[in-house]
Amino acid sequence: MKKRIYSLTLLFITFIFPASYAEDGYRLWLRYEKVENPSLLKNYREAFSEVIVFGNSPTVTMAKEELRIGLNGLLGEQVLMSTSTTKESALVAGTPLNSELIASLNLDKRLSPLGDEGYMLLSTKNKDKNLIVIAGNTDIGVLYGTFHLLRLIQTNEPIHSLNLVNKPKIQHRILNHWDNLDRTVERGYAGFSLWDWHKLPDYIDTRYLDYARANASIGINGTVLTNVNANALVLTEPYLKKAAALADAFRPYGLKVYLTARFSAPMEIGGLKTADPLDPGVRAWWQAKAEEIYNYIPDFGGFLVKADSEGQPGPHNYKRTHAEGANMLADAVAAKGGVVMWRAFVYSHETPDDRAKQAYNEFKPLDGQFRDNVLIQVKNGAIDFQPREPFHPLFGAMPETPLMMEFQITQEYLGQGTNLAYLAPMYKETLDAETYAKGKGSTVAKVVDGSLEGHQLSAIAGVSNIGTDRNWTSHHFAQSNWYTFGRLAWDHSLSSETIAEEWLSMTFTNEREFIDPVKSMMLDSREAIVNFTTPLGLHHLMGWSHHYGPGPWIDNKHRADWTSVYYHRADSAGIGFDRTATGSNALAQYSPPIQEKFSNPKTIPQEFLLWFHHLPWDYRMASGNILWDGMVYKYYEGVDQVREMQRIWNQMEPFVDAERFEHVQTFLMIQEKEAVWWRDACVLYFQTFSKRPIPAGLEEPRHSLEYYMGLNPRYVPGI
Amino acid sequence: MKKRIYSLTLLFITFIFPASYAEDGYRLWLRYEKVENPSLLKNYREAFSEVIVFGNSPTVTMAKEELRIGLNGLLGEQVLMSTSTTKESALVAGTPLNSELIASLNLDKRLSPLGDEGYMLLSTKNKDKNLIVIAGNTDIGVLYGTFHLLRLIQTNEPIHSLNLVNKPKIQHRILNHWDNLDRTVERGYAGFSLWDWHKLPDYIDTRYLDYARANASIGINGTVLTNVNANALVLTEPYLKKAAALADAFRPYGLKVYLTARFSAPMEIGGLKTADPLDPGVRAWWQAKAEEIYNYIPDFGGFLVKADSEGQPGPHNYKRTHAEGANMLADAVAAKGGVVMWRAFVYSHETPDDRAKQAYNEFKPLDGQFRDNVLIQVKNGAIDFQPREPFHPLFGAMPETPLMMEFQITQEYLGQGTNLAYLAPMYKETLDAETYAKGKGSTVAKVVDGSLEGHQLSAIAGVSNIGTDRNWTSHHFAQSNWYTFGRLAWDHSLSSETIAEEWLSMTFTNEREFIDPVKSMMLDSREAIVNFTTPLGLHHLMGWSHHYGPGPWIDNKHRADWTSVYYHRADSAGIGFDRTATGSNALAQYSPPIQEKFSNPKTIPQEFLLWFHHLPWDYRMASGNILWDGMVYKYYEGVDQVREMQRIWNQMEPFVDAERFEHVQTFLMIQEKEAVWWRDACVLYFQTFSKRPIPAGLEEPRHSLEYYMGLNPRYVPGI
Repeated sequence: MKKRIYSLTLLFITFIFPASYAEDGYRLWLRYEKVENPSLLKNYREAFSEVIVFGNSPTVTMAKEELRIGLNGLLGEQVLMSTSTTKESALVAGTPLNSELIASLNLDKRLSPLGDEGYMLLSTKNKDKNLIVIAGNTDIGVLYGTFHLLRLIQTNEPIHSLNLVNKPKIQHRILNHWDNLDRTVERGYAGFSLWDWHKLPDYIDTRYLDYARANASIGINGTVLTNVNANALVLTEPYLKKAAALADAFRPYGLKVYLTARFSAPMEIGGLKTADPLDPGVRAWWQAKAEEIYNYIPDFGGFLVKADSEGQPGPHNYKRTHAEGANMLADAVAAKGGVVMWRAFVYSHETPDDRAKQAYNEFKPLDGQFRDNVLIQVKNGAIDFQPREPFHPLFGAMPETPLMMEFQITQEYLGQGTNLAYLAPMYKETLDAETYAKGKGSTVAKVVDGSLEGHQLSAIAGVSNIGTDRNWTSHHFAQSNWYTFGRLAWDHSLSSETIAEEWLSMTFTNEREFIDPVKSMMLDSREAIVNFTTPLGLHHLMGWSHHYGPGPWIDNKHRADWTSVYYHRADSAGIGFDRTATGSNALAQYSPPIQEKFSNPKTIPQEFLLWFHHLPWDYRMASGNILWDGMVYKYYEGVDQVREMQRIWNQMEPFVDAERFEHVQTFLMIQEKEAVWWRDACVLYFQTFSKRPIPAGLEEPRHSLEYYMGLNPRYVPGI
Repeated sequence: MKKRIYSLTLLFITFIFPASYAEDGYRLWLRYEKVENPSLLKNYREAFSEVIVFGNSPTVTMAKEELRIGLNGLLGEQVLMSTSTTKESALVAGTPLNSELIASLNLDKRLSPLGDEGYMLLSTKNKDKNLIVIAGNTDIGVLYGTFHLLRLIQTNEPIHSLNLVNKPKIQHRILNHWDNLDRTVERGYAGFSLWDWHKLPDYIDTRYLDYARANASIGINGTVLTNVNANALVLTEPYLKKAAALADAFRPYGLKVYLTARFSAPMEIGGLKTADPLDPGVRAWWQAKAEEIYNYIPDFGGFLVKADSEGQPGPHNYKRTHAEGANMLADAVAAKGGVVMWRAFVYSHETPDDRAKQAYNEFKPLDGQFRDNVLIQVKNGAIDFQPREPFHPLFGAMPETPLMMEFQITQEYLGQGTNLAYLAPMYKETLDAETYAKGKGSTVAKVVDGSLEGHQLSAIAGVSNIGTDRNWTSHHFAQSNWYTFGRLAWDHSLSSETIAEEWLSMTFTNEREFIDPVKSMMLDSREAIVNFTTPLGLHHLMGWSHHYGPGPWIDNKHRADWTSVYYHRADSAGIGFDRTATGSNALAQYSPPIQEKFSNPKTIPQEFLLWFHHLPWDYRMASGNILWDGMVYKYYEGVDQVREMQRIWNQMEPFVDAERFEHVQTFLMIQEKEAVWWRDACVLYFQTFSKRPIPAGLEEPRHSLEYYMGLNPRYVPGI
């Protein structure tokens, strides 16, 4: 462990460096550039004449270093780190337990409801001293408060009358890394896995610490290191030692390690003949395995499991239910406070009449059968992270079971590594959706945070977009999605606008002439991709396997519900998937108010039109266009939106360092190409059914349908 | 191309940053820290009162920027960049063609023999001005001279009486990247491939430019982008466009792009039914393909080919010779000045009596049959990059054919990503070896540089150790091997000591108390690995497939000459491969003076003893020890040497930044573990044959032989 303490100073050296250094994006939103506004700078300097951080745990040490480095940067001068107040004004940080000064402020009544992770920020006077106080019940609360205070300064907020309390709405805020042991990352577009398993446990890359610190800065408190398409090897001794070394590195930042459990592990690495969850030998094996893990990682968070899905083994192999499978694992980790996150993303080997219905059909009947420490991890929508999906019908349908949200941060279907897609609007769309489970106001967010049904246990997961790329996320703007996930996981009531503004201020500049146009560009960016890939409720039209680029022609040479034609159902009559009572009736899985509204193509939100309805090409839309024209206009609008993004960005050159400006500019150029590729391929392909012309005034497709169908990109990242 | 010009400024921002930035190793040996010696600093500042670089080609722009950035750093003040001399003293750089001032110095007689890449560095007086002159016949000569001058300052050399000419001894100095299109790197231990093929040609990572610049700084002028185990796809249009974008990025640095040609490409991507090199259709296909490549890359360097080896297709599939195969490709690129580098690393599908003999047997008879633009690329030794091999018997044996050297920079058999092995002594050992082809003085180096037989065409290749790791090469000290390869490729007469000292001064510090001990540590480092892995001429004892760790027990479940037992031939009687007349007689492939000396175990250099002789365990060595004891002592000595390296390094803390100090310290700790692993595993395994005790006074093995044989490292990088 000595090694790790040495590394603390290194970490900060690595992360913080002078502004003259190339802006390669490594610093993320923790840049701490000097405050430009002179009067604000003066205020801040006065308020922080000295800084006192109480305590000396590893977590407190992180808070202290963060304040020292952060304020040195923001104030443009060396801040005085003291152990007691000697000046007129000071920043003090601590808990009532580790600081008499904090205890003397009598904050207990306001602090105690804030729990283990909450904090107060307070401007107050104490014995003639002006104090800015960061107070928490725990050291990690103090660290979270530290990042909040620094964010206020980074975004040029006033601090003279601070009086706020804050705590997370969701208990477990977790990144899911789909990282394989060979360092490839499934659906990873930012290089390779951060985890250099081969050199662990001996070598702790400083980047592991930078990663943990960035997560702490946005309140992420858990990380699943390995792919849900799991490899049982990670549960063997050599890999547990490696995982433990990562857990040690992350611990000061409040970041817990979780692992994916391959259901057949007892056979693959345990030498058993079965993995039947009711078999006593299997149960004992998992019990012993959990104990072994807790020996290595005393605060191990628990297991994430993908079972009976896409070829992964599971309890169905033994004619057991998901509940029986999950409960076995839950029993193994319960004594140490571990949880099991059991994914609802399942579908059987046989092609169902509608894949969208399957998770609901399998899991709803199990409501009430799961152990208290089991969470069902549900993707935001019922298909698979499409650019737009209606919320998953399981939300609100399993009142006795804590359901956790699984968002995808990595842009599998949203332009992968090179497209600018700010995802807060997409996450918010789902979180704010009305389930009507208990009448109006029963939002998905309330299901997830546990408040709707009064669950104590709550969690949210985001499939990571982080890799070895120097800027962590391939696209500089993809950093905003990591940031957004953390911020919304902490407080889902934040608006997309607020988060974008925070992130832009911290990552680029506080200049309004930059923030306003770029924020608007971000807010429109996801819709642009919806438009040029899958407008009006279309979905699952991407290229085979790598999911890069368009593939609306992918047909049933393959398993039907992995094809595109299964989902768009285009024919000479029309297009769309009838999920109303005349079709698969997936709509029946939703509450009656939704059924009523969505069953009628005139009242359904137009963005879900073809998700639920198969309509004729000449169906007259609310806009007055026939469906064909309306769809084509959407595809063209998507491309236009990308070009508008290019126009906006090109004007931002004065506000952005050359390196990031050019990087984003190049990526937008790539996005424009890909948008045209999508638009042309889809419009030309669907035209073979509609037999209708592209409306007048729109530019010609760049190439023929044959050309687009002949493209065969190879070695696409992320498979 | 506009994009690339924008990037130039970025490049320098990326590469050069203040000393306060974390020393993560990214800057390699181009750190340009301020000169510490005050009187030297004063001298340098006076001499470089202003800097004038003539010309404005992309290459000249690079030289100008390098001088500006380099001198700003080294002198600790902004250097004055002028267009004509206005001060008393100046640095001037240019060619007689682009500068009247340079032309007026009448250097032509000394310049003209220096060719396209040579340069002069000269201190002179001109019209009462004190000038330091960098003069070349070409812009690239000026750039190379620029790096030389900067190196002199970095290493604190005097510059007041400069008067030197310099040119490379070898024409083509080439890195071989064994990089696959999916970004994995065969035998790569420093992360993944630098080439982000998916985002090419649109996105030019600034790292590509940093890579080219680093190569230029040590005179490397070519790079083979792709693995010798070749993928024909790289010859298709999409990939040629990508390769062309890299070539454009590299061009200003004098770095040419080469590609690997898969022999069966005409069938795989050309739709032909054969790849027979005498088939007119095949010949026409390659001709057209070469023309296509030259359209994309006008200065394309040519092809590197691995044929009829380890499963790669080749002319033998059609009962043609290597010469017929190579000549077909040579004809395709000849008109544009391209070359074909045809590897001699071949062995047939059938296990030969001695794999060491095969390349010689196949290639020597073909001497004289190759086109003028074919080079035969020969590994330093006849087996495969072992920690020590005698020089390859082909050197000196094919007088009518230019033979080029293939060294391995990546440490496949030398501790991979975590061991400290300075390879100059290994390269020098081969280059300085006497072939006696034309009597004494007929060194391998003279074969390679063409001087022995008067070949104009000459080349040298190094299998790259470069990857996406932030410090480029995984181990900070592995940077020295990239550096060494470049320096020796330029001038093989440089000593290992000189190169180590240069590199240490530039990469760490000029302090003697650092350089002397660390240089001695570097000079011993490769021998340490020989000792703890394969002492006394043992070879090929490593783990299966990944080659990580020991595997002396690997036996003939597999193809015999891929096993370990094939090479060590240990039995109850003794150990070693008899390659004398009583055995495989591979020794007969060498010149008579070598045969004579090596055939006798008493006169053969002891480091090759068991390469050529099978000897009894109680054979009495020159040292007085019996063979078993002598071998065991060597294994233990290897571990002791690693511990001595640790001892030395631990004393270097005052001289090294914390980040690199700790990094190297951790890696040495890993190396110590691996050294013990190798030592114990080999000694315990061979003891099962010798039935003799480990000599008294040596520490006990840490684990049993069964333990070591049971280790099964998974997901080792570089396969």
